[in-house]
Amino acid sequence: MLNFSYYSPTEFVFGKDTEKQVGKLLKFYDAKKVMIHYGSGSIIRSGLLDRVINAIAAENIEHLEFGGVVPNPRDTLVYEGIEICKKENVDFILAVGGGSAIDSAKAIAAGAKYDGDFWDFYDRKAEILSALKIGVILTIPAAGSEGSTASVITKTEGLLKRGGYSRYIRPTFAIMNPELTYTLPRYQTAAGVVDMMSHILERYLTRTPDVILTDRLCEATLVSIIEAARIVMKEPTNYEARATISWSGTIAHNGSLGVGRVEDWTTHGLEHELSALYDVTHGAGLAVMFPAYMRYTIDADVQRYRRMAVKVFGIKDNPRKPMKVAKAGIDAMESFFKEIGMPTSFDEIGAKKEDIDQLLSKLRINRGEKFGQFKELTLEDARKIYELACK
Amino acid sequence: MLNFSYYSPTEFVFGKDTEKQVGKLLKFYDAKKVMIHYGSGSIIRSGLLDRVINAIAAENIEHLEFGGVVPNPRDTLVYEGIEICKKENVDFILAVGGGSAIDSAKAIAAGAKYDGDFWDFYDRKAEILSALKIGVILTIPAAGSEGSTASVITKTEGLLKRGGYSRYIRPTFAIMNPELTYTLPRYQTAAGVVDMMSHILERYLTRTPDVILTDRLCEATLVSIIEAARIVMKEPTNYEARATISWSGTIAHNGSLGVGRVEDWTTHGLEHELSALYDVTHGAGLAVMFPAYMRYTIDADVQRYRRMAVKVFGIKDNPRKPMKVAKAGIDAMESFFKEIGMPTSFDEIGAKKEDIDQLLSKLRINRGEKFGQFKELTLEDARKIYELACK
Repeated sequence: MLNFSYYSPTEFVFGKDTEKQVGKLLKFYDAKKVMIHYGSGSIIRSGLLDRVINAIAAENIEHLEFGGVVPNPRDTLVYEGIEICKKENVDFILAVGGGSAIDSAKAIAAGAKYDGDFWDFYDRKAEILSALKIGVILTIPAAGSEGSTASVITKTEGLLKRGGYSRYIRPTFAIMNPELTYTLPRYQTAAGVVDMMSHILERYLTRTPDVILTDRLCEATLVSIIEAARIVMKEPTNYEARATISWSGTIAHNGSLGVGRVEDWTTHGLEHELSALYDVTHGAGLAVMFPAYMRYTIDADVQRYRRMAVKVFGIKDNPRKPMKVAKAGIDAMESFFKEIGMPTSFDEIGAKKEDIDQLLSKLRINRGEKFGQFKELTLEDARKIYELACK
Repeated sequence: MLNFSYYSPTEFVFGKDTEKQVGKLLKFYDAKKVMIHYGSGSIIRSGLLDRVINAIAAENIEHLEFGGVVPNPRDTLVYEGIEICKKENVDFILAVGGGSAIDSAKAIAAGAKYDGDFWDFYDRKAEILSALKIGVILTIPAAGSEGSTASVITKTEGLLKRGGYSRYIRPTFAIMNPELTYTLPRYQTAAGVVDMMSHILERYLTRTPDVILTDRLCEATLVSIIEAARIVMKEPTNYEARATISWSGTIAHNGSLGVGRVEDWTTHGLEHELSALYDVTHGAGLAVMFPAYMRYTIDADVQRYRRMAVKVFGIKDNPRKPMKVAKAGIDAMESFFKEIGMPTSFDEIGAKKEDIDQLLSKLRINRGEKFGQFKELTLEDARKIYELACK
């Protein structure tokens, strides 16, 4: 087990009707002027936005609305949001939605307290050292952004997708009512499931020895997600299954499952360029990339894949044939992705083999440079993984 | 799954040599005058106190020392500490030790910001609404106080042991170096193991349906603790096993394993009077009380005990004989406690059957009143559980 720091200060308020508490939470955390940040019209149509506004008004807190977030949120909206915050003296951003709204809110919150170009944070030219406070009402469990230090933004010019990370952009509170996720389209539910599974798998695939406690916690969460996803695909309004998925999404990415180990994140890196180029849902892109990545890296630690197969995907163990067990586990994972309606190859998401050069050119990896923790890779390996994903 | 709030804002800094960071952490959290609060001379003899003082001095932060904490910490020392804090304008209390030092620090931190008698908080006459900041250097993994809202103090007059709870007494940071636990006596290590297991079991024994995710997380942690405890009993300086125990102790009590369910805590209540009266180590008292409590309540939910038996204690399942499996699980737990050198009956801790009336009189339960969540109990049931613990 490696030395680590674990810090997850977000207050999670979870359960039925919890969005009604938003006004009181904003008051408790001393919000004076709130920007409500959201994406499409679904939160308007469902009446959620009105309920939120009423709860805020009941506490006599000022607010303004700022919608328009798109999936794979853009820098252009962030610039606009920063301007508004500065002009209107916003001190609290309330993101209502999923990872896109939250990530966009995080970028605005950091940019509003910075004199330079906020993209510096995503381009690793500057460090986020302060931000406006952020609150969340989560409607799409997937990205885990409600409890994470991460924010991913796409630069419109050149379609570059980059992450910014800081303890200062962790939400102060996150309201999570699983009922708000009942109406999520099947595809988005499934993409969320793959996204949260992938957050665990990026941590699970490690070469750090002696992390059995977190291995078991990872497996417990993965098994629970898979079980609940199967229920939700049949019964979209099953509260318990929706609740399990919602809370798992948070646990998957609040850091607790990665303590004491080197994490990988290679597959996320490879997928980011995919969703930036084709504007595909992140979780769907991950469903395409993970089986390819795993098959390509299986020799790096076949015993770890064997363990995953047995503990997560219920493959019968056979200590004498670890490779066979390991492969069966990856096959089972891919079958599960298909079962819940996710794509698992390039053509299903409109990606083209001919574009691989373009994808490679956008990765921040130079020729000859090594990357990857679980298995050390080069740009040539990345090409082969993309090719495997073409099928 | 029930609605819940989950809030665990403590920054955990975990691993080898992490105590060297204490000065920088105090600086980061803006400490001006620190009270170092500790118990016996072991932290002096080991040189830890000197290292801590040097790290604080290196950051030019003022400090004063306040030792003398005893196991089952007393109100008398708390009163003394509050006086010193007020007189010396202490703004940060650094507890160096285990649960006793931390609990005492929490009581002082709350009392120093309160005009009345701090015992009001423990007597449920007042609510803790503010406190000095608290930091921790953990040397005994057991109570989980480094990441909890709880503090347990014993009133010298009448030997009443009572808990105070508040979000405001959660430590701001907790430094956890598993190497500092190498020299813990066998008995104290084992008592810590039982203590942290019991924090999980009090949550695991619930009647709330649909909490499978946290059930699995509880089981993953329990299995890891048992495995690591067996290693540590043979190899006290096995870093990985010590690290697993240390981090498990935090997870066991930071709230994450209890979300969405009604928790029980009956056994803790019964044990508190035992350790108050005989000054027995809390974990040892729990090792005596838990098998008795479980045997007495087995009929409340035999399937839950069956699940525990199979998932935690490795008992072979037999769906047709759930009671047999359940009982075997409790037997296995008791055997494990014995294996690591813990007492499992009254006489082993110097407790006497004749004192049961006295124990019952100190429980805050009136005749005819019901208590307990997992199984509803009366004072007469409590008597029978104490009697079962006599063997």
